[in-house]
Amino acid sequence: MTTAYIDNLNWRYATKKFDPTKKLTQEQLDGLLEAMRLSASSFGLQPYKFFVITNPALREKIKEHAWGQPQIGDASHVIAFCAYRTIDEAFVDSYIQRIADVRGMTPENLKDFRAMMIGSVQGRSPAELAAWTKCQTYIALGFLLSAAAQHKIDACPMEGFDPVHVDTDLDLAGKNLTTVALCAVGFRATDDSTASYKKVRFPMEELIVLKN
Amino acid sequence: MTTAYIDNLNWRYATKKFDPTKKLTQEQLDGLLEAMRLSASSFGLQPYKFFVITNPALREKIKEHAWGQPQIGDASHVIAFCAYRTIDEAFVDSYIQRIADVRGMTPENLKDFRAMMIGSVQGRSPAELAAWTKCQTYIALGFLLSAAAQHKIDACPMEGFDPVHVDTDLDLAGKNLTTVALCAVGFRATDDSTASYKKVRFPMEELIVLKN
Repeated sequence: MTTAYIDNLNWRYATKKFDPTKKLTQEQLDGLLEAMRLSASSFGLQPYKFFVITNPALREKIKEHAWGQPQIGDASHVIAFCAYRTIDEAFVDSYIQRIADVRGMTPENLKDFRAMMIGSVQGRSPAELAAWTKCQTYIALGFLLSAAAQHKIDACPMEGFDPVHVDTDLDLAGKNLTTVALCAVGFRATDDSTASYKKVRFPMEELIVLKN
Repeated sequence: MTTAYIDNLNWRYATKKFDPTKKLTQEQLDGLLEAMRLSASSFGLQPYKFFVITNPALREKIKEHAWGQPQIGDASHVIAFCAYRTIDEAFVDSYIQRIADVRGMTPENLKDFRAMMIGSVQGRSPAELAAWTKCQTYIALGFLLSAAAQHKIDACPMEGFDPVHVDTDLDLAGKNLTTVALCAVGFRATDDSTASYKKVRFPMEELIVLKN
């Protein structure tokens, strides 16, 4: 592991105060989104969508539904991580078709994999399924935070919002999606005092158990 | 975003066949664990522990409880991501004490933050709390997969295991922890045919919604 990689993870923090004048370049934004797109998910199913929010009026509405957190107004971009509420056969089929397209196969070639996924999905209660898609979405959040840190882009992941209202703000009604996390991205304000707080993590020996 | 970063994410895949003769160096392992330790979590609470499993007999037991997936036996290391089943006041206090220790404060200085966390935790049903700690754990999985890819270390995240048995294998009874994911890490076998499969992701325009 390079020291630089770990240094960058230590550099990152949940940025509380963004500089509203500093915006990501298109290249930076595209890179972050590509990192999220390349995230891992169970079966590779990608049961989520990502909303990239720049519209100021929409940002204000979301901010109201997120305890007024200023990051939502001030950051360069706000990304909403939205998980599918449920997975139907049509969604699995859209994924199967995508595999077939990318790998030059036919859905028929993939019928065992399809059956396995359908079995896995149908073996879960609606609540279990929603929890599962949510977890997959959090992996992508980890991919975003890692990619941002390695490129000295600041980020603030947020769970403190009212998902019912934010779902309405994002016009998700009838779209089988719900917002599970928000992440503001951009650049820290030079006077964000929290930037200099020492990072707090449990010591390695408490967090890690070796089974040798 | 550097091209190399994205290239490395494209290089990674859920490695199905590891070379059992290739082991991570201690430095590589330490780097991965440090990346996980530096993961983000809600409130910074880190409601998880990571088990690093090298013991061959234990690996065999876990493999049996994970549909015999050969990665579990063959990879250099297997990491179990274990989430707390519940969060009690004592755990919150251990975190508060840690903040106080790292930042040279007293728990008294942090009483508002403590009250906020306790309120958040107690406002959730047991099922909601378990789902929440699980999601936090998945962010750390994203940190591991990202860090591994950037250092050309292979990984295979796995949900396909029986958590009741794996919890027993890891001696988690009475420890308020449950295994939510496994991840094998090491180096791909040169003859893993799946390594050359084209990566399948939905196109950017399907996965991303712009709200301008």
